[in-house]
Amino acid sequence: MRATVMYGAGDVRVENVPDPSLVEPTDAVVRVTQAAICGSDLWPYKSMEPDPNGRRMGHEFIGVVDAVGSGVRTMKTGNLVLAPFVVSDGTCVFCQEGLQTSCLHGGRYGFDGVDGGQGEAVRVPHADGTLVVLPVDEDDALMPSLLTLSDVMATGHHAALAAQVGPDKAVAVVGDGAVGLCGVIAARRLGAERIIILGRHPDRIALAREFGATDVVSERGDEAVERVRELTDGLGAHSVLECVGLEQSTVTALSIARPGGAVGRVGVPQGESIPNAPVFMENVTIAGGPAPARAYIEELLPDVLEGRIEPGRVFDRATDLDGVPDGYRAMNDREALKVLIEP
Amino acid sequence: MRATVMYGAGDVRVENVPDPSLVEPTDAVVRVTQAAICGSDLWPYKSMEPDPNGRRMGHEFIGVVDAVGSGVRTMKTGNLVLAPFVVSDGTCVFCQEGLQTSCLHGGRYGFDGVDGGQGEAVRVPHADGTLVVLPVDEDDALMPSLLTLSDVMATGHHAALAAQVGPDKAVAVVGDGAVGLCGVIAARRLGAERIIILGRHPDRIALAREFGATDVVSERGDEAVERVRELTDGLGAHSVLECVGLEQSTVTALSIARPGGAVGRVGVPQGESIPNAPVFMENVTIAGGPAPARAYIEELLPDVLEGRIEPGRVFDRATDLDGVPDGYRAMNDREALKVLIEP
Repeated sequence: MRATVMYGAGDVRVENVPDPSLVEPTDAVVRVTQAAICGSDLWPYKSMEPDPNGRRMGHEFIGVVDAVGSGVRTMKTGNLVLAPFVVSDGTCVFCQEGLQTSCLHGGRYGFDGVDGGQGEAVRVPHADGTLVVLPVDEDDALMPSLLTLSDVMATGHHAALAAQVGPDKAVAVVGDGAVGLCGVIAARRLGAERIIILGRHPDRIALAREFGATDVVSERGDEAVERVRELTDGLGAHSVLECVGLEQSTVTALSIARPGGAVGRVGVPQGESIPNAPVFMENVTIAGGPAPARAYIEELLPDVLEGRIEPGRVFDRATDLDGVPDGYRAMNDREALKVLIEP
Repeated sequence: MRATVMYGAGDVRVENVPDPSLVEPTDAVVRVTQAAICGSDLWPYKSMEPDPNGRRMGHEFIGVVDAVGSGVRTMKTGNLVLAPFVVSDGTCVFCQEGLQTSCLHGGRYGFDGVDGGQGEAVRVPHADGTLVVLPVDEDDALMPSLLTLSDVMATGHHAALAAQVGPDKAVAVVGDGAVGLCGVIAARRLGAERIIILGRHPDRIALAREFGATDVVSERGDEAVERVRELTDGLGAHSVLECVGLEQSTVTALSIARPGGAVGRVGVPQGESIPNAPVFMENVTIAGGPAPARAYIEELLPDVLEGRIEPGRVFDRATDLDGVPDGYRAMNDREALKVLIEP
């Protein structure tokens, strides 16, 4: 089969790789119908050391079950399934607590003999614990929005929960990438009426407004902090969603939080540390991490199926596998917001 | 009157200073009956640059109201009052939310013309918003325990709340100082059955056990992390109370938290930053800060009055004003756990 392999910064290729097959009785093999390029795929795209073995890429996909091991109970050949961005066994103490990203027997796509999602097929370990059967056909118009539940919409929701979003709270979303935009959807969905987005790309800001953002701050650094304070009676935002992960954006996120407020971080941190002040003196809570998408699908799926949220609108480009390398380039150059792959 | 003044590291003196008097109509003047030396007073004792003007010390005290301004409504001359460790107006948005440490018009004892608590009397601004009238006489045997509500017991409670302590959770308390010991009391009070204390002073550990600690880890650094993991099925503690504030203790606290767990920080951070990993990848929440003692007194006071908790046992030495400099020395040398002052 063909799949996406990264050999180093800026070096993404689509190549022939071995076809996946069942290894464990709890495996499923899934033929990929839709996949995506993630903002987090751009970190290695910017910085990966050259590796002659390459790294299989992709962790967001929907597909049709091609084969299941003898131990798989919740799906069968022909089912359409959604894959959250990590593998989880569904039975360990953390899975039972809804924190599947810390599964004791979990794993990541593209590592340890597991295929990446940006290819024709994937061997998925712990299929019952990982995959969710979708109640639609593979050509359903909702497919882009459903695909976001594998990562980006679940991640926006996680940021909003970690930031303790609720009615009557002023919310700030740092970052106008796909996760930030989904953070706006999540904040609106959880009842926030005041949603300030920090970003400066006109198309993305326009989409943020359609998703529910009420105010836009296009400044950066200290000026952004100043502007958010102006918009919040000088106090800061109750809930801040940090959807970038850079040190500068993290400092901004912590600085615009109101005393007693909370920052929900979902951007993979690129810095070494979190500054202490003014976080401690103002009792600002820092929460978040990788989103347990598997835990959130049950809650978010009805809203997608019934059209109440449309996170699939973050996809502004589609390609087949051949176009994947250019898709990375386009996202890295901020020419595309998020790229949908149809293998 | 006589009061405690610090002129630099290791240089604490008891001197004659002007008698306090009413300045604003919302002031009260309080004659101090009991005060305390705080672990946080030891930071300047270790590191304060020489200052010829000196700094008035002390922020934990109980006293009798000597005079009230015309705008004071909730107390009168002769009332016994408890002073939380910061001044708060009781009316601003943060006071209304129970975060009096972020009061928009708040202040600190020993700064901006406000007296310190380690002296014969104090002018307390915003008396109605700050002070709490106690329903006992000044010679009541509960006085040491009541005094802890001004800071150290409220701070232990705050750490426990920030760390999301509850029944069925494994709790770890980093630090066996007075705050850590009060953290043990708070964790027990909130229903925790497994309470691991990290510390190595035999007398303090013995007291921690009486307060409810079930396990003791006397190792430090990586060995302490290893030991806590052994005690928690390899998973870590759900709730970690960081009651020291040093960079090393903070790293330990973050490292012993279970995935999805929470660290409640109340030790004033002496480091510049918080390390990112493994906090983010394991969805560990970092919360806490200065405790809004004023908000917690209502909840904790009945437990003290009815003898259900005895935080006053953290005092292991008492002195008059003359003995205050030696009290600082004794606490700094870890000869005393916490010193009670009776001016």
